[in-house]
Amino acid sequence: MRNILIIGAGRSASSLIQYLLNKSNQENLHLTIGDLSLELAKRKTNNHPNATAIELDIHNELQRHTEIQKADIVISMLPAHMHIEVAKDCITFKKHMVTASYVSDAMQSLDALAKENNLIFMNEIGLDPGIDHMSAMKVLDEIREKGGKMLLFESFCGGLVAPESDNNLWNYKFTWAPRNVVLAGQGGAAKFIQEGKYKYIPYHKLFRRTEFLLVEGYGKFEGYANRDSLKYRSVYGLDDVLTLYRGTIRRVGFSRAWNMFVQLGMTDDNYVMENSETMSYRDFVNSFLPFHPTDSVEIKLRMALNIEQDDIMWDKLLELDLFNPNKIIGLVNATPAQILEHILNDSWTLEPNDKDMIVMYHKFGFEINGKEQQIDSKMVCIGDDQTYTAMAKTVGLPVAMATLQILNGNIKTPGVQLPIRKEVYEPILKELEEYGVIFKETITPYIGYNPDKLATTN
Amino acid sequence: MRNILIIGAGRSASSLIQYLLNKSNQENLHLTIGDLSLELAKRKTNNHPNATAIELDIHNELQRHTEIQKADIVISMLPAHMHIEVAKDCITFKKHMVTASYVSDAMQSLDALAKENNLIFMNEIGLDPGIDHMSAMKVLDEIREKGGKMLLFESFCGGLVAPESDNNLWNYKFTWAPRNVVLAGQGGAAKFIQEGKYKYIPYHKLFRRTEFLLVEGYGKFEGYANRDSLKYRSVYGLDDVLTLYRGTIRRVGFSRAWNMFVQLGMTDDNYVMENSETMSYRDFVNSFLPFHPTDSVEIKLRMALNIEQDDIMWDKLLELDLFNPNKIIGLVNATPAQILEHILNDSWTLEPNDKDMIVMYHKFGFEINGKEQQIDSKMVCIGDDQTYTAMAKTVGLPVAMATLQILNGNIKTPGVQLPIRKEVYEPILKELEEYGVIFKETITPYIGYNPDKLATTN
Repeated sequence: MRNILIIGAGRSASSLIQYLLNKSNQENLHLTIGDLSLELAKRKTNNHPNATAIELDIHNELQRHTEIQKADIVISMLPAHMHIEVAKDCITFKKHMVTASYVSDAMQSLDALAKENNLIFMNEIGLDPGIDHMSAMKVLDEIREKGGKMLLFESFCGGLVAPESDNNLWNYKFTWAPRNVVLAGQGGAAKFIQEGKYKYIPYHKLFRRTEFLLVEGYGKFEGYANRDSLKYRSVYGLDDVLTLYRGTIRRVGFSRAWNMFVQLGMTDDNYVMENSETMSYRDFVNSFLPFHPTDSVEIKLRMALNIEQDDIMWDKLLELDLFNPNKIIGLVNATPAQILEHILNDSWTLEPNDKDMIVMYHKFGFEINGKEQQIDSKMVCIGDDQTYTAMAKTVGLPVAMATLQILNGNIKTPGVQLPIRKEVYEPILKELEEYGVIFKETITPYIGYNPDKLATTN
Repeated sequence: MRNILIIGAGRSASSLIQYLLNKSNQENLHLTIGDLSLELAKRKTNNHPNATAIELDIHNELQRHTEIQKADIVISMLPAHMHIEVAKDCITFKKHMVTASYVSDAMQSLDALAKENNLIFMNEIGLDPGIDHMSAMKVLDEIREKGGKMLLFESFCGGLVAPESDNNLWNYKFTWAPRNVVLAGQGGAAKFIQEGKYKYIPYHKLFRRTEFLLVEGYGKFEGYANRDSLKYRSVYGLDDVLTLYRGTIRRVGFSRAWNMFVQLGMTDDNYVMENSETMSYRDFVNSFLPFHPTDSVEIKLRMALNIEQDDIMWDKLLELDLFNPNKIIGLVNATPAQILEHILNDSWTLEPNDKDMIVMYHKFGFEINGKEQQIDSKMVCIGDDQTYTAMAKTVGLPVAMATLQILNGNIKTPGVQLPIRKEVYEPILKELEEYGVIFKETITPYIGYNPDKLATTN
């Protein structure tokens, strides 16, 4: 038996564990599933004979060492900042390691030691980061192998509610950490490259500079820019590309509506509001509007945001029950962002039978044999239920597949790695298709933002 | 002779030193003026026999101790964070101390020791903070002594260019630290109380929620909210007041125009721009606008901000030469805010003969004998030249006067103090009038924001 230690049995571990258990007889696998909550770990074993649940506190060094020593490979599904102690032990005890998290500086600093010991530390192999790297690199490599020169790369991803469960005016529900949704885009300008020029969008304009995306069979979406579109410029070999943009996908109209909260100041997480515990939803809204002796909160808000009473934006606010004077926030010393998250949770929490959906969309513009072309690569994945969600599948399955590929010696390159090599993305993308993670490509002439092209195609 | 040690001989020390030198024979004063630059210190002595210039490095502990021991009182005009070592020495050697800076937590922690040693550590006795405290407390005390109950307190202050030197479309020049002007309002929402309700304005809306102020003889001004209007609520005894607001004064139209920079993202100080050294003014503007194959930077900006070509807003931008493709920024790794400051310095630097102006405006709403009234208290001070500026006078003179009052035993209360007691504000406000710092009061019925009042007065 090959022993796999899985640390962390939270939501994103469900599909990962299910995959490995399904393969466990055929592949001679035994899983040790460790979590602070033994009960949670137990539930995830699903009473499978090839799985053992343990209560595991990673701050208990002795226990951590014991468990890591027993394993052949370690999967850490811990929060990103907690990987490093596990990673150091993996060096000490010479174990491979897999995570779905961004490579931290601390993790990167182990690269030489991992290589020395011929260990593979595979990171960023979830959804985003993960499937985005793999599906982008696959097309980029194909274009380059044919002698193409990259002009444009745009990449979008979003976690949404599935069409069959999409029953509110925002076309949105929380399918992952709500706090990250409320804080999205904060902490600096969004930075990207457009036709060779660096561009910056300040936070308060972010949700008004969106791009439309059409996905056949699923309709129209929109994307707003991520904080740093340039992060993987060199990693992807795109140092000379004219346009480089990464974004987040929402249903059309979400960003314009979300912008109302941004404009009012409701997404601010930098200060605590007075009397947040006792204020009503209506009080919260009123805090961001000037006093007026006779106008209602509703009228003041419509005036402040220039919303007509028959505008769908207005109905979106009403749907959230934002003006209710009887609903009390009940959060002590809360920031506006925390209060907004609380209010949105009333309306945007998934119902027991709701399903989620992941949408990914890449655009590749390139020149080949004197011709300019564009490939659009699109993927939609719908969740099975509230355990095997699209998010759990797309985050967990690549982690599980990479783990098995490493154990079986198919992924060979040692060091602190991202899934950007063919030895990684080729087998995993192929296998992901069996689980419904299928990229569909279309080819069109490349238009980009070139004036001559626009003129001739217009 | 009574020895006064003045540490720091920068711009704000000019009027302060001049005042004390003028009184030095009559009052038996000897000034020791210490600065890192001996040349600067020497220049400020003006060859006066009662002044000695020394090169003083406050990080040289021995020298600091020697000079403080020789003094009867110490004035620190150092940057705020550098006062504390001087203050500790003043405890050790039992010397009074005066600063124009906000009381830091470190300074406040010396309160008990100062009281034990019967020492006066007078702080916040410049302009803002300083004259604002004194002029506000004078009226507040008068109202309360007559049995009045405070309903509203609003307080505004601004450093501007004097009317005779006001020759640009912005009606503004830098009369103090330009960096603080560019960053004004950043770092959190503006917080205040309006008719009993806490109100918050996010930074990107700050310059659109202004209030007009009329100063007889000087015309119309506008005020935008300071970050924390509530700071002195308890100090001023205004815990029950219905409206509490502090703001910054500009000429009408400045805020609307400044808001263009805010909306574009040009005031952001949180990230460094790519290629900031080699980019032109025009490139800088273009960084905040989307790429367009045919539209010029000018047209894109007008579209983004919705500015008609005959709008004065547009002329304000042209006046700054913002679209010049030949002017190069030349700053390495600069933030948008640093670049904007650089561009504004071209246009907003005072000419040799320009004068500055300080405007302060308080509103006091109160109920007395069943009647509601409002007192408006207004002060305008014009600089003499570029040494004895309105800013240098209004910051330095109260420091100098407080120093003399302490030496002469008229200010008596020991401890870490603000100038909110009658023993401080009464003599100093009176003497300031001789130097042109004169508050004029008007009395009107109180309107506030009360609907009935508005109805009956409309």
